[in-house]
Amino acid sequence: MQRYFLKEMIDDYQNQLISIEGDQYHHMVRVMRMKVEDKVFLVLPNSQAFIAEIQTIENDYLDLKWIADEHQNKELPVEVTIVSGLPKGDKLELIVQKGTELGASHFIPFAAKFSITKWDEKKGLKKIQRLEKIALEAAEQAQRHVVPTIEAVHSLSQLIETSQGYDRLLVAYEESAKVGEDQNFAKVLKNLETGEKVLVVFGPEGGLSEKEISSLTDAGFICCALGPRILRTETAPLYVLSALSYQLELNQSK
Amino acid sequence: MQRYFLKEMIDDYQNQLISIEGDQYHHMVRVMRMKVEDKVFLVLPNSQAFIAEIQTIENDYLDLKWIADEHQNKELPVEVTIVSGLPKGDKLELIVQKGTELGASHFIPFAAKFSITKWDEKKGLKKIQRLEKIALEAAEQAQRHVVPTIEAVHSLSQLIETSQGYDRLLVAYEESAKVGEDQNFAKVLKNLETGEKVLVVFGPEGGLSEKEISSLTDAGFICCALGPRILRTETAPLYVLSALSYQLELNQSK
Repeated sequence: MQRYFLKEMIDDYQNQLISIEGDQYHHMVRVMRMKVEDKVFLVLPNSQAFIAEIQTIENDYLDLKWIADEHQNKELPVEVTIVSGLPKGDKLELIVQKGTELGASHFIPFAAKFSITKWDEKKGLKKIQRLEKIALEAAEQAQRHVVPTIEAVHSLSQLIETSQGYDRLLVAYEESAKVGEDQNFAKVLKNLETGEKVLVVFGPEGGLSEKEISSLTDAGFICCALGPRILRTETAPLYVLSALSYQLELNQSK
Repeated sequence: MQRYFLKEMIDDYQNQLISIEGDQYHHMVRVMRMKVEDKVFLVLPNSQAFIAEIQTIENDYLDLKWIADEHQNKELPVEVTIVSGLPKGDKLELIVQKGTELGASHFIPFAAKFSITKWDEKKGLKKIQRLEKIALEAAEQAQRHVVPTIEAVHSLSQLIETSQGYDRLLVAYEESAKVGEDQNFAKVLKNLETGEKVLVVFGPEGGLSEKEISSLTDAGFICCALGPRILRTETAPLYVLSALSYQLELNQSK
């Protein structure tokens, strides 16, 4: 069943008709060719999701009525923020699309020392709008209750400032495997508690500089290796999110 | 350090000069602009990897000498085959590239009932050659010892025949979560033993048909859910490989 995120809160959504217009109307009627009595999932800004049935279709809007709340929780039990050293090309789009499917809550582009791509203010704004659209579509497709946010580009010092609001700080660093730290990631995952906020930093193609690593570890970040193979900058976040889901959602007999 | 897979076995590789010509010569000298004394990883067809140093560079070949064997194992402790219901567009390329980084050993394209894409013999051969090239490049980049193979397109009956040579048979099926089977995947992973052969089947965009699921389960396949979110056909294999790596390579204190 198709899923749509409503932009405005409806307090009494179980008892009143819900009108849809604009892009979502267009998608339902023109793209999906929905008819009266077809059903969709709607998600309120407070993450409450419910099934609704189309009652009437007019020229530029349609009305739905509530059928049943959705009770299954679709969100990871922890709130994960993916920080990506600005990669080349459209790799950040892949990270946001797949990272949204895999349950991330926030994405922060990071102007890392070895990032070849630079975003000025104008380019940054356009890029972020495009990534927001990708996150919305992926959240609809993955049947999520939350659309991940895309934050403004962070410098190293902004990243360290932001990190102070988090419970767990990790940085993916392949050198960790060589110094006996290859179990760090699993240790952190097994001690996560529901509701914790987790921030994970990934370098761009050229990796993170020694200075960046030392600034992050001084700020309390833990270096984690992600297995013996070298993962590309866009693959490592998907590994982390998949492992988090496996550990917290599937592997409950810890 | 760059990595190259040698096509022919060299028995006495520690004591004789190794000549490289053709594409690999071109990549080393023209693309990477390597000089005498630069070092690379070479991998023999038997998966033995070693560091070698360039001794001389001629117009159409170069010679290297052995420096040291590589001892770190880069391969997953189990041999994983990813079976993908033929997806649309270039999604299979993404599956092969990322799946190779994440440690898969074999890929089997599967002509599933709901596959919109069809491969005739000529198209199939070209596609497989392209996927082999992607697997080789990803294996070099990920520092692997093995280049995954791409098999010919399989029908359902061919797939079931092939599956008889495997130790563990899994099929990703989102409906499993609804019937109390959401722990199947973790149960299988926790009981895997080193060297086992694992086959995992994924549907195309439209999923697997009920008939396909029942034929597979009749043949001994176990249905697995991969968490509460709906993963796209190209994302699910990456989840499975990441979880396998996490469970078998990072989470050793089971």
